[in-house]
Formats: sequence, structure tokens, C-alpha cells
Amino acid sequence: MNEHGNEEPAFEIGVVIPRRVVQEKDESSDCAYVLVKEFEKAGFVVERVIGIADEFIKLAVPLVTLGRAAAELQIKKRTHIGMDLQFKVEEVEAFVKQPDGSVFSWCERFQCYCHLIYEIVNNSTSAKTLKFDGKEIHWEIGESLIQKLESENIVKQVFPLHDEKTRKKLLKSWARQWWDITNQPIDEIYSYYGAKIAIYFAFLGMYTRWLLFPAGFGLALQLIDFGSLKLVALPVFFIMVILWAVMFCQFWRRKNSALLARWPISSAVAADQGYKIPGKKASSIQSPIELIKVFEFDKVKGKQVFQRYEWFGRLMRFRNDAIIIFGIICLQLPFELTYAHLYEVLGSDIFKFGLTAVYIFAIQYITKIGGKLSVKLIMYENNEDTEKRADSLVYKVFGLYFMQTYIGIFYHALLHRNFSTLRKVLIQRLLLSEVFENLLENSLPYLKYSYKKYRVRHKKKNEKDGSTEKFQFTSRVEKEYLKPAYSASIGEELEDGLFDDFLELALQFGMILMFACAFPPAFAFAAVNNIMEIRTDALKLLAILRRPVPRAAATVGAWLNIFQFLIVMSICTNCALLVWLYDEEGKWKIEPGLAAILIMEHVLLLIKFSFSRLVPAEPAWVRANRAKHTTQAQDMCSKKLLRTISGGEKNLGEVKKLA
Amino acid sequence: MNEHGNEEPAFEIGVVIPRRVVQEKDESSDCAYVLVKEFEKAGFVVERVIGIADEFIKLAVPLVTLGRAAAELQIKKRTHIGMDLQFKVEEVEAFVKQPDGSVFSWCERFQCYCHLIYEIVNNSTSAKTLKFDGKEIHWEIGESLIQKLESENIVKQVFPLHDEKTRKKLLKSWARQWWDITNQPIDEIYSYYGAKIAIYFAFLGMYTRWLLFPAGFGLALQLIDFGSLKLVALPVFFIMVILWAVMFCQFWRRKNSALLARWPISSAVAADQGYKIPGKKASSIQSPIELIKVFEFDKVKGKQVFQRYEWFGRLMRFRNDAIIIFGIICLQLPFELTYAHLYEVLGSDIFKFGLTAVYIFAIQYITKIGGKLSVKLIMYENNEDTEKRADSLVYKVFGLYFMQTYIGIFYHALLHRNFSTLRKVLIQRLLLSEVFENLLENSLPYLKYSYKKYRVRHKKKNEKDGSTEKFQFTSRVEKEYLKPAYSASIGEELEDGLFDDFLELALQFGMILMFACAFPPAFAFAAVNNIMEIRTDALKLLAILRRPVPRAAATVGAWLNIFQFLIVMSICTNCALLVWLYDEEGKWKIEPGLAAILIMEHVLLLIKFSFSRLVPAEPAWVRANRAKHTTQAQDMCSKKLLRTISGGEKNLGEVKKLA
Repeated sequence: MNEHGNEEPAFEIGVVIPRRVVQEKDESSDCAYVLVKEFEKAGFVVERVIGIADEFIKLAVPLVTLGRAAAELQIKKRTHIGMDLQFKVEEVEAFVKQPDGSVFSWCERFQCYCHLIYEIVNNSTSAKTLKFDGKEIHWEIGESLIQKLESENIVKQVFPLHDEKTRKKLLKSWARQWWDITNQPIDEIYSYYGAKIAIYFAFLGMYTRWLLFPAGFGLALQLIDFGSLKLVALPVFFIMVILWAVMFCQFWRRKNSALLARWPISSAVAADQGYKIPGKKASSIQSPIELIKVFEFDKVKGKQVFQRYEWFGRLMRFRNDAIIIFGIICLQLPFELTYAHLYEVLGSDIFKFGLTAVYIFAIQYITKIGGKLSVKLIMYENNEDTEKRADSLVYKVFGLYFMQTYIGIFYHALLHRNFSTLRKVLIQRLLLSEVFENLLENSLPYLKYSYKKYRVRHKKKNEKDGSTEKFQFTSRVEKEYLKPAYSASIGEELEDGLFDDFLELALQFGMILMFACAFPPAFAFAAVNNIMEIRTDALKLLAILRRPVPRAAATVGAWLNIFQFLIVMSICTNCALLVWLYDEEGKWKIEPGLAAILIMEHVLLLIKFSFSRLVPAEPAWVRANRAKHTTQAQDMCSKKLLRTISGGEKNLGEVKKLA
Repeated sequence: MNEHGNEEPAFEIGVVIPRRVVQEKDESSDCAYVLVKEFEKAGFVVERVIGIADEFIKLAVPLVTLGRAAAELQIKKRTHIGMDLQFKVEEVEAFVKQPDGSVFSWCERFQCYCHLIYEIVNNSTSAKTLKFDGKEIHWEIGESLIQKLESENIVKQVFPLHDEKTRKKLLKSWARQWWDITNQPIDEIYSYYGAKIAIYFAFLGMYTRWLLFPAGFGLALQLIDFGSLKLVALPVFFIMVILWAVMFCQFWRRKNSALLARWPISSAVAADQGYKIPGKKASSIQSPIELIKVFEFDKVKGKQVFQRYEWFGRLMRFRNDAIIIFGIICLQLPFELTYAHLYEVLGSDIFKFGLTAVYIFAIQYITKIGGKLSVKLIMYENNEDTEKRADSLVYKVFGLYFMQTYIGIFYHALLHRNFSTLRKVLIQRLLLSEVFENLLENSLPYLKYSYKKYRVRHKKKNEKDGSTEKFQFTSRVEKEYLKPAYSASIGEELEDGLFDDFLELALQFGMILMFACAFPPAFAFAAVNNIMEIRTDALKLLAILRRPVPRAAATVGAWLNIFQFLIVMSICTNCALLVWLYDEEGKWKIEPGLAAILIMEHVLLLIKFSFSRLVPAEPAWVRANRAKHTTQAQDMCSKKLLRTISGGEKNLGEVKKLA
């Protein structure tokens, strides 16, 4: 991105305050004025923009301030010896640089911004009185200014801003490059959006690229008439597709670690601080940091306390999962089955339509309740950080979606053995997801944005009472403020919009893989859809939405496990499909046919679970490259390092003796 | 162990040279004299012992020499900041101490011994002439003295010696503590024998302790008459046993990491140097260290070269595995089946006996050939270090033993559905392994030792021609020299006696678990056997065998994977057993019974593969404890560390510029 220090830093955070009706006479007690002054004092580069309905303070941060904030936050960064150490401004040389040459990643910068903004406190000896639109606010000693103003509704929002230059560059090199098919400038996406979003697009790109193979195979199976070989072609397709999926998951892991080798992401990043603006943190039962102190006094007791803590957390997790699974099986499953059955039984198309409408209404409600419940339950789990908590949420909510999406199809496939209906349902769903969801996903935010703009204009008009003047949004920052955020449909507590994007992928993956034998050309549908998805998602992020808050995690997280689970499921479902496809009279015994399919199933399961042992998740060159770098640096300063450590140990010993 | 530096160091290495007939007049050119002098020059404490047939040089090493050797070897040791750094004598404070307070572990000490012994070279300006029993040896400049003498058959062997004090202590506190059942002083075993052997005994202890639960359940099932509930009790037993096995494997992982938290084992230990005395190293195709250098010049090319290297290695590994599997299926399987079938068919007991004798003779030959072939094949694989290579060997050879042990039982169980024969075979095998193998394992080395002693005496007698003088072995070191080494039955290249001990455990585990439904009380047999096994193995190591060469690895390695594989196998075999047990007419269709068993099988498989996700392999307290230690040390000297690193980086940059 922008090279800090040399060029002018870009404005990356916006603070919104309402536009005032009354202008304060005494500037020094004017709230906005004080805010700007305090920001400047904190080391920000500040720009004020007055919009139609609100006023905006744009903040940029020079490298010096950034370094200070990072040192205060004790951010741990990767050093050349491969160890994460606390950042110190003077020793900036010791830390590994970002691929674009800057010292801090967007995620770290965002952390520093938050720290700097929220750490503005009243340092003077007395409380200050600030005025805003006639209102008086008492800024007490040691109180955070922004939090005070937020609670008074004067600071309406703090949100990350797009960097216009980079955004335009990315629009050109990424969102509009339709003919690149699956190629994307991942490093630039990482620099601009942070690791998690870059990983999503890398995953989507690789998945789409890999999809081309089964897509071709599936289409061939559909179009070419194999004659008597038809019965052999289907199992072959099934085996190929499962192997493909198993390999895809493992090779994605390798790709992921290759990407992480390029990005110096510290393993110690406190993911807790990365995602959310402070003050909204989810609380866990008991912080392990306090527990660690127990070790100081008694090692045996510390061990016991920790074990109790660990197992209690696991028990809570287990209980929560059990509640969710129980809820899904006892409440959602009958509901879904009723719908599927009624749909099958009803004769009239009008009834069917009505039923579906009622169903869609109800299911959205159910999903929302499930999501809320999951978030509440997760509060009682002692997951290590926000990302772990988000993963836990993903598993739980995916259960809901899994039932919702597949149970109807299972109903047709496994119970009714109605293959023509099954195929029809699959085509419907795939087309639906392709056209409808892509459309919805992109148009809904745009409509929201337009509506917001309209409302602001309308309000302004009403205020000026009947004037025919047209309000134009001249400032970019105001437009951005009106844009919707990249948020998840299940609530903003733990996940952002990536949840919906990954969910879409996972449901598609399950759909095409679990019923591969019933409808091979589904892979082609999915491939076409995903090629479009890459660019539309890019457009959505660059043009339609606000810049998202960066997240610290740099893996796909829970979703990879969900993909793996879907592979296992699909081995079982496809075998069942094959049995029912071949055995139309339902008279098979434990004789050749069934036995062959059972053996095939077991062999595939074995391959699935042993493949990760055969091909390690980290490529040899990544490990070798890292080893080379770190050992070189380690050997270079081994002696001095040792002196430092033994000195430190001596000091530590003395400190302990004194204490 | 013994605190070096304060007390007199113990003698830990013995060098054997033949007893001379002719005493050299000029001492300075006498080979043994020069050897002792050179050892003293290298910093050893030396003691010469003259035995009946040979002469022994016992070596001990003071801490100073040890430190020098470790620094020369650039041994990487765990420091207080959690990073492995090269050992430096002056900064000994920076390194984490062993649990017994000494600086070096037995494995590290052994490495240093080898380095010191084999690095004795001719430093003078001219070749030296040494004399031994009238023979003249030219010791060239820069040549290793020991290697020269070994090639001339003057140094007969270099082998590790028992430390009498610790050995006696261990005999008392470990081998003779029968009433402790499964308790063992693991830390002392670690100090004396190194990590790998301590891990074996910890594993054996935990396995035996855990076995008590299914043993009780199995016995209850056998002794109590459940009446009509009998048909339900068996599946319940099966499910419990599988859950037990799954949990055992995962909790062993936790136990292992808890043990490793106590022992400061560097992850960077070059396992290659740990196990074998130098000069006998197995060669790999291409050393990756040379490959790493490619990165210096061209990163992209380096990546390509590495990928090619990695995939070629994998291909070779795959090819080798394929050869072995092909060999087992096409050669061994028919052979075993023929034997099982003939045994079943033959009427006369005499014929059966003869057949078995032929079979046992043949199978030992086959196993030996298989082992040799495997070792040869492994030479072409690019496994990272000796331990990885040993793992690869274990997998291959276990395939042979798996067939050999179980195919006969499978034959009875699955093909003939002859349950009474199956039970009989199981009892036979379990009793056989219990009594016979334990006996063999302990008496064979003792017999070998006695025979060797007899031969030495006999030879001596013949030399002295008819004298009635009785030769007594007065020196302990000579007795130790005559004791057999702790070596594997499949060859000494990659494995030591642990191979046989683990093999015995794994075969037993498979036997009791795979046919759990056919013969539940097998678990009780196994438990009794293992309680005995702990003490007899301890006795064997302490009293009957030489002290083994320490190995660097500190996990069970390939064996845990084999246990996991056996669990998966046993889920399938037990389900098959249940189907055949319930369905005596063989008329089942895909109706309730079979479907229930299939669902049970799939659920169990799911639990097996997801359990490791639920319960992590590392306990939280181990991680917290480590984190506390390292972060404390890191924070203590963070600033100085950073200065060192950035200084190092600058130097590195300058060096690169100059180059």
C-alpha cells in the first residue's frame, strides 16, 4: 500500500459527528474543535469534511505515531530470527517487513488507530466542559473522550475509510479483470483488506480453478452416451470426485501455508483486538491470563486449576453443541420434513407456492433465532480468542443451514428414491443460488445505500421546507458513511460478511458433492457460478460496501473442517445413492453388489482420513525457506542472544529473590 | 543422573581392544598406549581394565570437555526464551537444565562422546607408526585414529557402559517394584536411558493402567450370565471398547506432551546424530541442506527445485509402499491362507504339527527377507532423519507381521464363521504370546550371554592347553561387553530393541481389539501380561542387556498411527463379527439389523476421526506453563534481543553487499 513516512499517509479512519445547527462562539469549548485538537495532539493527520447531514473527521497516521502506538500496545511482531517480539520503534530493523515494504499490516495499523483514538483521555487536572449544539458535556479526568461522546450520541460512528488510490487500482487490476477467470492479485488484496479476506479470495480462486476438472467430467458424463458402460461410469465419476475433493482440501492447506510464508503474520497476534473496535468485546468466563499467575506459586496446584478450567470449558462447549444439535433434530428436522412431505403431497401449484412462501418466512425467523441463541451460548465457552469463538459459532449455525438446505433433498433422495424429482430439485436450487443469490447479494446493499441517500436528501429537504434545491453528495467520505457495512446475516457480534460468502460456498460444495451421482453436471453449474462470484464479490467489497474492519486470522478456520465433514457425508450419501440406483427392486442381500459398494465406501473413507498423513499441510519449500531465514539470523547473533538470555535469567532470579 | 563437575563423572563409554600376546618395548609407539594418551589429550578421564580375552578402555568425560564438544558440534539446546540455540560454554545459564539438574541429557552426552572419540586425528606434521602385537599401522595425517584402528580390527567395539550406581538404584526403584503395578520412575528412566525408552515405558504403563477397565468389563461379560440381555451386552461392550481405545490414543498424546514439558528436548536435535555411532549412517539421495542453498540465488527456482525434490521423495515412498503391499498381498497372503486352510482341513494331529513346524520355519525366513528388502527400499527415500526413516521401516514391516498374525484368525472369523475355532485360536495365541514370548524375550539374551562367556573361557583354556585353571570374569566391563545389545530382530540399521517391544504391544492390541466381540475376556489376559511385561522389560534392560545407544526421538512415532489404524480396522471387523453372529442363516437384507450395525459403524468411525478435534493433543496447562516461562524470559530481555537482531540483520546486509 502507501509507503508511510515518504509519502503523505492516506486517510484510513473516519469519525462521524452530526452537523450542528448552532455554531459555538467559543471555539475552545466546541466539541468538534476539541476533538480535532486532541486528534492532532495524539499525532494524527486530521481533515475535516462537512457533508450534507453530518460532519466527518478523517484521520491518517504518520509512521512515527504508528510506531509509538504499536510500542504502547506491545504488539508482537515477527522478527528475523523467527520469534515474535514486542515492537520497539528504535529496533525497527529487527522486524520482518510486509510484502509491500511497509512496517505494519493493515490489521496492525487498525489496532493502532483504535488504540490512539480510544486512549484520548482528559489529562488535565480538572474536568472539561464541552459544548455541542447547545448541549453541555462534562469530560471527567481520565475519561476516554470518544467513549464519552459515543455515549452522548455525538460521535455517531468510527469506521475505516477506503483509500481512494488503492481502491481504484484494485478495481482495475482485480474486480474488472473478468478475463483472468480465477487469477487475482492476492498480495494487494492482503495489503488492502487484511489476511482473512485475502484468504477467502485465494480459497475461492483455487476452488474454482479445481472445479473445472469435475465440471468437465460431469458434463461429459451427461452429454456423451456411454451405452452399456453407463453403470460403470457413475461409480468411476463418484470415486474421482471424492478423490478430487480430498486432494483439494489438503492442497488448499498447502496453499494457505505458502501464502502465510509470504505474509509475516505473527502467531501471537491477539485476535481479540484485531476484529472489533474496543468496548464491544465479548466476555469469557475467566481469563486464562489470571490463571497463568497461579503457576507462580504452586506448580501442582496450577496444573490442577488449569485442568479444571480446560475440562470445564470443554464441558460447556459440549453442552452447547448438544443443545444446538438437540434443537436442530427435535425442532428443525420435523419442520423441514413436514414441509418436504406437504410439498410432495400437495397437488395444486397454488398451494405449493403458498406453502413455500410460509416456509421461507418461517425459516428466516428460525435461522435468526438459532444464530442469536448460538451467540448467547458461546459467551459461556472459554474459547481462546474472537476467531475461535467465531469458529464455534460457524459450526453451530452451519448445522441449522445444513438441515435447511439438504433435508428436503435427502427426503427425495433417500426416502422416496424419486430420482427425477431429486434432479429437478437440484437444478432448481443450483440455478436459484446462482442467479438469485448473486443478484440479491449485490443489489441488496446497493438498494440499502440508495435508500439511505434518499432518506438523507428527503430529511434535508423537509428541514429546508419545500425548497427545490437538489442535494448532491459531494464528499466521498459521506457517501462511504452511507454505504452498508460488510456484516453477517446472523448478527455482527462475531462474524462479518465473510460468513455469508463462505456459507454460500460450503452449501454449494455440499450440494454438488453429496448428490454427485444423481446429477453430475452440477459441477459445471457451480464452476460458472464461482467464476462470476469472484468478480462480483470483489466489486461488492470495492464499490458497494464500506471498507471492512480487518480480522487477524489468516486461515479459512472452521470452514475447512466443514468442507471435510461434507466430504465424509458425501462418501456415505453417494454410496447410498448408488445402492438405490442399482437395486431398483430393493431386494439386495449382502452379496456382490452391496458388498462391493460397502468396500468402496470404506476404502474411500480410509483414503480421506489418511491423505493428510501422506501429503503434509506445509510444503517442504516453505519450511526450508523459513528454516534458512531464521537459522541464518539466529546463527548471526547466536552468541549475543545467549548473553542476553543468560543475563535476563540472572536478573529474573534476582527479582524473584527480592520478591 | 550424576552431577558432573562436582562429583567424579561416571564411565559411560567402553572401547575394546584385543589382549596382546607380545608386549611392546617402546611404549610411545604402542597402539594401546597412544590410544590412552590421545583420549587423555581429548579431555577424557581414562581407566584401563585388562580382562581375560580383551583389554578395555573406559572413558568418562568431565563437564568442561563436554561443553567444549557440544560447542564444537553446535548442538542446539532449548534456551529460556523457548528458542533452540547453539550451545556456548560461557552462556550456560541461558539454557534450560535437565530435570536432574545436569546440563546435558544422556543423548547429548553420547553425541559428544562420539564426536570426541572419532575426532581424534593425527595433528602432527608426519604420519605416525603404531605397533600392535607385531603389526604396524600407519596413522596418516588428518586421519581418524579410531576409524583407522577399527578398520584394522584393533578397536573391536565402542559401546556405552552401564553406570553401576544408577543401575543399582533403578533396579531397586523400578525393576523390582512389582507391587507398584504400573507406576514407574519415568524421569529417572529418561535420565538414564534417554527419551525414547522412557516414552516406551510410560506408554506401556499407561496402556496397562487403561486396560484394567475393559479387562474388568470383559471378564464380567464372560462370567455373569446376562440371559436374554446377552445379545445387547455384546454391542454395548463393543462400543465401550472402541470408545476406550479412541480415548486412550488421544490421552496418550496428551500424556506425551506433558512428559515433553518436563524434559527440555530441543526440537532441532539432529536425530541423525543421536542414534548411531558415526560412520554407519544411512545415506539419502540428496541432502536438503544443499538444496536450501539454491534459495540464496533464486527464490523461484529454489521453490521449483524443492517441490521437485519433495514430490520425487513422495513418489519413491509411494512406490516402495506399493511394492511392499503388493508383495504382501500377492506372496504372503496366499501362503498364509494356504497354511490356515491346510491346518483346517488336515485331520491328523501329527500332520498339523509338521505343517506348523514348516510354517514357522518359512515365516521367519519371509519376515527376515521382508525386513531386509524394506531397509534397502528405504535408502531411496528422502526421509528427513533417522527417526523418520525408522518410522517408514516400522510401517512396512508391520504390514508383514499384521498379515502373519491376523490372517489365520480372519480366516476363521470372516470366511468360515467358525466361532468356536476362532475363540480357541485366540486363547492359544494370547497364552502363547504371554508365556512363550515373555520367556523367550528374557531367556534368549541370557543364553546368548552365557554361551559367549563359555566360548571365551573355552578358547582361553585351549590356548593355555589343558590347564585346569578356571577363568573368572572379574571385571564388570568385560561382562558387559559379552552381554547382547538391545537390537531389533529385523536388523540393526534403523531400529533397536524397542521395535520388538512395540511390535509385541501392537499385535496384542490388535488381537484383543479386532476380535473383541468374539472373545471379551482377552482384555484381562492382556492386562495380566502387560503388568508382568513392565518389570521383565525393565529387568531385561537393566540386568541382561548392554546399555542401549540413546535415541533422540521423544514420541512413540509410527506406532501410535498403527494403533489408530488398528482401531479403525477393529470397528470394521467387530461390525462384521456382529453381523455374522446375529445372522446365522445368512439371509439378512438391508433391513433393521444390518442397517443398525452399519449406522453404528459409521457413527463410531465418525467419533474416532473427530475425537482428536474435540480433545487437543496438548493439555492447556502444558501450553500455559510454556507460554508463561517463555514470555517471561522474552519480555525480560526483549529490548536487548531486538538490538541484537537488528544489529545482526545489518551485518548480514553488509556481508551480502560485499559478496
